[in-house]
Amino acid sequence: MITNHRIDLDRLMGRIRALGEVGSLPGGGVCRLALSDADKAGRDLVSGWMRDAGLAVTVDAIGNVVGSRKGETDGPMVLVGSHIDTVATGGLYDGNLGVLAGLEVIDVLNDLGLTTHHPVGVAFFTNEEGARFAPDMMGSGVHQGALSLETCLATAGIDGATVGEELQRIGYAGETPAGSVTPRAYFELHVEQGPVLEEAGIAIGAVTGVQGISWTEYTVAGVSNHAGTTPMRLRHDAGYVAAEIAVEARRIARDIGGDQVATAGAIELDPGLVNVIARSARITVDLRNTDDLLLREAEAQMAARVVELEKSEGVTIAARSLARFAPVGFDEAFVSLVAETAQKLGHTAMRMPSGAGHDAQMFAPNCPTAMVFVPSAGGISHNVEEYTAPDEIAAGANVLLQMVLSAAGR
Amino acid sequence: MITNHRIDLDRLMGRIRALGEVGSLPGGGVCRLALSDADKAGRDLVSGWMRDAGLAVTVDAIGNVVGSRKGETDGPMVLVGSHIDTVATGGLYDGNLGVLAGLEVIDVLNDLGLTTHHPVGVAFFTNEEGARFAPDMMGSGVHQGALSLETCLATAGIDGATVGEELQRIGYAGETPAGSVTPRAYFELHVEQGPVLEEAGIAIGAVTGVQGISWTEYTVAGVSNHAGTTPMRLRHDAGYVAAEIAVEARRIARDIGGDQVATAGAIELDPGLVNVIARSARITVDLRNTDDLLLREAEAQMAARVVELEKSEGVTIAARSLARFAPVGFDEAFVSLVAETAQKLGHTAMRMPSGAGHDAQMFAPNCPTAMVFVPSAGGISHNVEEYTAPDEIAAGANVLLQMVLSAAGR
Repeated sequence: MITNHRIDLDRLMGRIRALGEVGSLPGGGVCRLALSDADKAGRDLVSGWMRDAGLAVTVDAIGNVVGSRKGETDGPMVLVGSHIDTVATGGLYDGNLGVLAGLEVIDVLNDLGLTTHHPVGVAFFTNEEGARFAPDMMGSGVHQGALSLETCLATAGIDGATVGEELQRIGYAGETPAGSVTPRAYFELHVEQGPVLEEAGIAIGAVTGVQGISWTEYTVAGVSNHAGTTPMRLRHDAGYVAAEIAVEARRIARDIGGDQVATAGAIELDPGLVNVIARSARITVDLRNTDDLLLREAEAQMAARVVELEKSEGVTIAARSLARFAPVGFDEAFVSLVAETAQKLGHTAMRMPSGAGHDAQMFAPNCPTAMVFVPSAGGISHNVEEYTAPDEIAAGANVLLQMVLSAAGR
Repeated sequence: MITNHRIDLDRLMGRIRALGEVGSLPGGGVCRLALSDADKAGRDLVSGWMRDAGLAVTVDAIGNVVGSRKGETDGPMVLVGSHIDTVATGGLYDGNLGVLAGLEVIDVLNDLGLTTHHPVGVAFFTNEEGARFAPDMMGSGVHQGALSLETCLATAGIDGATVGEELQRIGYAGETPAGSVTPRAYFELHVEQGPVLEEAGIAIGAVTGVQGISWTEYTVAGVSNHAGTTPMRLRHDAGYVAAEIAVEARRIARDIGGDQVATAGAIELDPGLVNVIARSARITVDLRNTDDLLLREAEAQMAARVVELEKSEGVTIAARSLARFAPVGFDEAFVSLVAETAQKLGHTAMRMPSGAGHDAQMFAPNCPTAMVFVPSAGGISHNVEEYTAPDEIAAGANVLLQMVLSAAGR
């Protein structure tokens, strides 16, 4: 059932713009790498807004910040979350939208003087982007027990400082044990970061889950030789083999079809000269699918092709897994509710997987979880050009509001 | 007809080793970049040997050094040449062998007290390698009128100094006009720089000509996007297109067959990250064939595929020619004579094209020209590991001696 309550778009956009000023880049966009001075300033701003909204704010041992609003009961809260760290040249919406829309939901509840049956919380999680410290989704991963707190605190970033040191330095090494909040439900509003909604002319994505991800780095060892004097039959060309792997990745995606995607984003040849057959090559392959069986099939096809290439080209190919996450499915009832709610609010909606990872996937194994996507102009993401129009933001935030009202109980 | 005269292998190997000491590298091999101090020391050493052998030594305006031995007539000389500059991590044989074997031929004539009908000369040409100054084969190119003296003198090297300045500095800006020597015939003994002779177990290559070379750089402009959130049908993946070009180059070589070779030696993707579809890519394609019609066919096939890829992938591909040399054919009578002479001397021989460029190709349009190849161990070239065994060198030098005796007339 849909209420008549709506979010205040001006208030939400004002906060998005204000947070976008923190760590802003000269040409637009922001840089708030996790646990940097700019991230601290962003955290201070948003925590202040949480306190202004009357929320009880806790900071846990990995720096996750949760603001909670009392309900009629003391049971687990309905939690809305995302992140406010950005990549080095990020936009104003990725992560920030989900946190500030959650805060807007709280403000609507406050404006109505409405006490929900269950408590409602809004959170931002540490280092979702992974741009300064690996892995990404660190705060939510520790929060939900998927990552070790000690390992994460000891992790050094691209500048050498560790997560633990930086949390201390910026004053966000909190005393609340990580993972002490087990929500009743978890919701996250996020920009799509892809072109699907825009292409389809659809306002709301009801996210069915997060694609499984398989990253493999192949190092090809061939034999360097003169490009003019070496007959084709005597070559062991590492560059050619790398190119074949990239082309094979495309073939696999085409043959498996559906949600399967495949990308060879990095190819490096040594020595990389016009007239020298490459001695060695490095190539990465990123395979993703919402269906783990199909993802395994894609991995198996690639592995088989690599063995063929070793034999036919007389090279050796070392494969190293850089990342492997199984697909995550969101709560089916909530996924349907997102789509229905959107339609009842007069918006078009479609079910779709998320191609990118999100904090929500850390919650999905432990509590009913759902995500709401709004369009990304041109599919552009992790870029200062990132953009989602205000009316699209309003649509997404209003769906989020209804989801919270539904799950928290009036 | 074959004479009983033979070269003195100890004398030749002694000079190869002595020249290899000049600019020697700690772990083996040499660095005598053109017109460097080490090149000057090498030039001084070899010019001294020329004078010791009674040759009249001239230095021309581009630094080519020619030592000539009088014949019964004053007509054009039979010239034996090559180069003594090396790449930064070169071996002892590339170029040096041809010059020092020519000097050995002179020594044999001197030992015999034999005056040939025509004069005989031995030369080393400036900057054959092109490792410090572009283009390669500069000295022989100016010598034979294929390159402009003024342009070459003004050419700055990788360290900023110009050819003209460096010739002055090391004292090799000679007064003899470049190109004043038009030989009666030109011969060059060289290491193969490829694996063909070794693979076939053949001692002597009778070089039919130099492959035509076509170097093209393709710059692919696609659209960078998220590797997870961008469906395959919406991609404009510059990295995939570059890989397709590399695979196409291999297909073209396979389909055309024969001497056709194709190499994609350099591939660079931007930004080159595992989870980002490449925005742009740079790839080089090196096509070579001894037959210019087939080389043009290979170029046309690649150009057609590039147009297809632009259309099917929605990218733009800019092609830039980095080099284009038509194939050069050597003198058919001399090529046959090389093979016959080798066999009469008890060596195996085969006709073969040169995959690499050589000074000889500058002479081929202007006088009867031939090259003699000896094996390169493992096909290794432009490398401190470059090696040709003494008995293989003796075989090649003895073929060269007989060629000179035949062409100069006893």
